[in-house]
Amino acid sequence: MGLILVRYGEIAIKGGNRHLFVSRLRRNIRAALRAHGIDAEVSSQGQRILVRTEQVEPALEPLSCTPGIVSLSPVVEVPSEIEAIEREALRLAAVEGVSTERTYCVRARRPWKQFPLTSVEINQRVGGAIHRQFAASANLSQPDVTLTIEVRPETTLLSTRTIAGQGGLPVGSEGKVVVLLSGGIDSPVAAWMMIKRGCGIIPVHFSQSESDTAKALANVEQLQRYSHGFELRPVVLDHAETIAPYLEGLQRIAQERWTCVFCKRAMLERASAVAQELGAHALVMGDSLGQVASQSLANLEVISHGISKPILRPLIGLDKADIVELARQIGTFDTSIREAEPCPFLPKGPVTRGTVGRLKGILQRLSQVDDRAVE
Amino acid sequence: MGLILVRYGEIAIKGGNRHLFVSRLRRNIRAALRAHGIDAEVSSQGQRILVRTEQVEPALEPLSCTPGIVSLSPVVEVPSEIEAIEREALRLAAVEGVSTERTYCVRARRPWKQFPLTSVEINQRVGGAIHRQFAASANLSQPDVTLTIEVRPETTLLSTRTIAGQGGLPVGSEGKVVVLLSGGIDSPVAAWMMIKRGCGIIPVHFSQSESDTAKALANVEQLQRYSHGFELRPVVLDHAETIAPYLEGLQRIAQERWTCVFCKRAMLERASAVAQELGAHALVMGDSLGQVASQSLANLEVISHGISKPILRPLIGLDKADIVELARQIGTFDTSIREAEPCPFLPKGPVTRGTVGRLKGILQRLSQVDDRAVE
Repeated sequence: MGLILVRYGEIAIKGGNRHLFVSRLRRNIRAALRAHGIDAEVSSQGQRILVRTEQVEPALEPLSCTPGIVSLSPVVEVPSEIEAIEREALRLAAVEGVSTERTYCVRARRPWKQFPLTSVEINQRVGGAIHRQFAASANLSQPDVTLTIEVRPETTLLSTRTIAGQGGLPVGSEGKVVVLLSGGIDSPVAAWMMIKRGCGIIPVHFSQSESDTAKALANVEQLQRYSHGFELRPVVLDHAETIAPYLEGLQRIAQERWTCVFCKRAMLERASAVAQELGAHALVMGDSLGQVASQSLANLEVISHGISKPILRPLIGLDKADIVELARQIGTFDTSIREAEPCPFLPKGPVTRGTVGRLKGILQRLSQVDDRAVE
Repeated sequence: MGLILVRYGEIAIKGGNRHLFVSRLRRNIRAALRAHGIDAEVSSQGQRILVRTEQVEPALEPLSCTPGIVSLSPVVEVPSEIEAIEREALRLAAVEGVSTERTYCVRARRPWKQFPLTSVEINQRVGGAIHRQFAASANLSQPDVTLTIEVRPETTLLSTRTIAGQGGLPVGSEGKVVVLLSGGIDSPVAAWMMIKRGCGIIPVHFSQSESDTAKALANVEQLQRYSHGFELRPVVLDHAETIAPYLEGLQRIAQERWTCVFCKRAMLERASAVAQELGAHALVMGDSLGQVASQSLANLEVISHGISKPILRPLIGLDKADIVELARQIGTFDTSIREAEPCPFLPKGPVTRGTVGRLKGILQRLSQVDDRAVE
């Protein structure tokens, strides 16, 4: 049976809510491993979670994708006695090839305060033994091999390998949000950021073409890797149908330039209704500023005006280069850049700097046109 | 006279708007250097900006803080002839101590396509000369010394030093936003992110105590370093006065638990009025999710409900550790963690998961209390 040590950060400091967060994290870890067909026993020990499984290697990737985990290490377990710890440390140093050419560093931690040696003393004793056996130099800033030791009352855990996790909060600890998910690069990254902050996301996609919808759905599958414990159930709505009422009106009053603004407003209105129905607190968009002429601050104000649910834009302060880097990292980039049919409704010279005043004027003219249509 | 080569990234790809962005960037560079008492001549050459000054070293820091700049290099200028380039390259390699112990890499770029050698040929020729003279090895992935060469029609620019810039967009290219700036860690980081995306920010601070306001104003000064070309003029409003009307009402109906929600709503309402008056398109807050129990998604919905201006929360998807790291980087952290008096209005057991329904109920009861008060 192998063992993996899981470290969580931010959530450890959460006072009264701590146990809720940790039990949510354990549940999500179980869900992630189950989804990969991995049998495991998941338990808490002090401020750590331990995963006991026959399938250590296959478990590492799903764990590294689970929000709330700061880092993880496959560990070896020995009795909490200094002789046993030293023996295992020497064995691991040999496996890792510590030598005159390959530096090392020992980092002990002693959650079990009754252990007779302090963490500094453990570092010195184990480090000294490695130095004598392999004639290797210690290097505290940039070692080739880092040996971590956690001395616990039950057993002591040793590792030479630490894998970074996602950080953030366990999925489901922060309620639900509706994410407007296109087939593009930005919105899946926005979705991932909210997953990482503990949200259960409901992807809402407005279908423009089969190729674009296929991209969005492929990205939902990719995002599911980060959201075990909360199943992603995409809601696919018809784009043309959603914007049709506005489109006709704008044509009649010869204001097709406003199509994109009204399209986004129509999508936000429908997404708000979905959020209300499914108990989500906010909408999430992949907007950043200034990527294209229509993604101006002025248009953002006009698009948001009067939408009942709050709109979260986690990418608003990021550069395109940062967003692309994140998309690559989470595995949605290649899908997002696949070719898809362009939007058929894109007008010539779309409005780039709308104002709320002009929006209101157009809304009024549209309602007058509607009234006449009814008469 | 020394010379600095300034590279801009994202804005270079902005099609029709490109010249506006670049001229805005030149203007901001001039403002930043002037603020530091540095005389300089700032001009464009192709897709680069050149800064000519007697004070190269003092100019580097202000430039590295100017949004829109991806990187900069102090450069040496030589005639665009391969012999002169090679001679200067050898001199720079000697200055940098290239040797058998110290690897190098040559990175040529040839915006002047009429130059007789391609960039690969320049790399080979200059790299070969360095190799022969210093018996040094080239290392393309992790060189100790990187020599960049830009062959332009006017002159060729060589450098062994590249300093990272802020990236983003030139301040003032994206209109204005009002930032709710407390004395804490988060809001200055949110402000900086919006500055970096080209916004002119208007800091609005609600003064609770002298110590807290001093922190906020010190951070405004720090933020000004990133915002040359747009002067930061903080608006300081009285906190107690802003929330007084709600505070009294909530006491009368024994709903003090809602104080923090109504406090934030009151601040957003006043900030919206400031935004409307000063032509800002949105409000900016330093909210992230789950940092404290009251920073829940549910409360976020309740706090935002019915606020007329859109609310941007650039930190909503970040972990506290990331935010602290950014605060250190931009130089606001030390000020933000100075002690200040706590908020005097903090109730016992503040609402952690409000709902819009309950908010509306309380708003109604408050208006009834007000009516009775008038009668």
